[in-house]
Amino acid sequence: MDEHTLIVKQLARDISEVENGGSKTEALLDKAWKSGKFAYRIGVTGPPGAGKSTLVNCLAAAFSDAGKRTAVISVDPSSPFTGGAILGDRIRMNALSGRENVYIRSMASRGSLGGLSLKTHDVCDILDGYGFDIILIETVGVGQIELDIAQAADVTLTVLVPESGDDIQAMKAGIMEISDIFIVNKADRHGVEAMIMHLRSLIALRKNYSTLPWEQPVLRTIATSGDGVEAVLKALHDYRDMLEKQQAWHSIRSERMKNKVFQIVNDTLSAHFWTPEKQKLLRKELQSATSAQQSPFRIAEKLLATLRKA
Amino acid sequence: MDEHTLIVKQLARDISEVENGGSKTEALLDKAWKSGKFAYRIGVTGPPGAGKSTLVNCLAAAFSDAGKRTAVISVDPSSPFTGGAILGDRIRMNALSGRENVYIRSMASRGSLGGLSLKTHDVCDILDGYGFDIILIETVGVGQIELDIAQAADVTLTVLVPESGDDIQAMKAGIMEISDIFIVNKADRHGVEAMIMHLRSLIALRKNYSTLPWEQPVLRTIATSGDGVEAVLKALHDYRDMLEKQQAWHSIRSERMKNKVFQIVNDTLSAHFWTPEKQKLLRKELQSATSAQQSPFRIAEKLLATLRKA
Repeated sequence: MDEHTLIVKQLARDISEVENGGSKTEALLDKAWKSGKFAYRIGVTGPPGAGKSTLVNCLAAAFSDAGKRTAVISVDPSSPFTGGAILGDRIRMNALSGRENVYIRSMASRGSLGGLSLKTHDVCDILDGYGFDIILIETVGVGQIELDIAQAADVTLTVLVPESGDDIQAMKAGIMEISDIFIVNKADRHGVEAMIMHLRSLIALRKNYSTLPWEQPVLRTIATSGDGVEAVLKALHDYRDMLEKQQAWHSIRSERMKNKVFQIVNDTLSAHFWTPEKQKLLRKELQSATSAQQSPFRIAEKLLATLRKA
Repeated sequence: MDEHTLIVKQLARDISEVENGGSKTEALLDKAWKSGKFAYRIGVTGPPGAGKSTLVNCLAAAFSDAGKRTAVISVDPSSPFTGGAILGDRIRMNALSGRENVYIRSMASRGSLGGLSLKTHDVCDILDGYGFDIILIETVGVGQIELDIAQAADVTLTVLVPESGDDIQAMKAGIMEISDIFIVNKADRHGVEAMIMHLRSLIALRKNYSTLPWEQPVLRTIATSGDGVEAVLKALHDYRDMLEKQQAWHSIRSERMKNKVFQIVNDTLSAHFWTPEKQKLLRKELQSATSAQQSPFRIAEKLLATLRKA
């Protein structure tokens, strides 16, 4: 095997270890944090059928052509039995195959949605440690998971189509706040002008939300033919420029590290507290609770009291 | 003011206190847990435009007619500026006005989606403490928040329409797992049979997921005329019967209390840990971190070490 194949295999193993929460997780993340932190993390979100995958393929190919080491993470919070991820991945592999500087990985929920966004952060950190220049994070679905994953990104693109009026309604939970660049894809379809107007009016309502000097652009693309992709690349470049000029590039990374410290500390505190003994005490208290009209506050108090004595 | 008005005003104040995390929150929840825990909590979910509100109004009116004290909580994770909740509330108030045994409350996200589902649990507990028999929890939107809020319910209804094929695709993240009863509303429209078939095939795929002896029914309604609402009420009654026979009615409440104990304990541990001193130390470490290629694991270690010394 050549060196490239070996590195890709090791990367795949490292990501799986982190995804599964294996015993080497901490050591891998520790190493990654020390050696990385400089990839441009681009989130791509939007309703199903908007053409996110096609657009992400275009962007990945363009970055790859420009000599950038590019990773694509496709996050699918679907139930395992739907199998949506597998089909999408196959199409993607075909579009980007043969490019040595592109790495593709899909992540599924495996039952725990809450855990998925944390894992996505960790996988981005691992890729960062491997020296990728660009990380494209594509999320399927509209909702909380999307917002969580957007936090893993430096910039968030929202991909819509001319018919997305209802989708905007469904997505309104925070979508206007997290989107830095709007894209109306399939722009050869009827209604594209109305959709752009609609988005612009929503953006106007939102002004002064962000402290960054950035007006969310509304771009039109036809991802299947590559039309408009240049403008998206330019907007991504401009956004990063702005972040660097505002020192936000640095502060986003610092904030990300702070959140990780909070998570590690809180997990550790919780793990130390919940000894087998305390879990036993909790079970006992719960058994007597429902008959005695107990309150969880009093049970928590009892458990925490054992800590103070010790 | 009569006694009823006074109680409703006090209830509204108590809920606001808990929603805002005011200083009396713990005392109110403590009292509620001691006096309540017996309301039937019914979650109603589904895509925008499926007719959830109309159906919830029908159900609330039917419960009210049967002499049940009924609360309706409408959870809208929308951005504040869209104002969707306000319109929906006005329609609802008209449909249910003049019923002394019905209480209506809407909850909006106010920026924090993660907090919203926790607050929804707490508001249900408060209503429980006030002795409501039925709590209907309606959630707008499709995604993580919906799944979180479903956990606050004993039973979850998913409302769809004949055209919801794409919605099922968008909602597939866990929706099949959390739904106990499926409703195809607007059943006078074209495509209702195909939709029912589609749902039944998805249900068949899912079998053996739950340990409860319950086959998810697929019911059809026309909520605007009340057609089919009787069957929904019967399914809700049967589901509760099944829960009680399986001792699940008790274990759901015990599980809910356990989760609340975990939350209180973990919040307390975190609050005790993060003294102003430790926050200062964290800020200092973060400042030196980005230049020195530090890792959050080492920073967490340093912070936790100060705890061990103390």
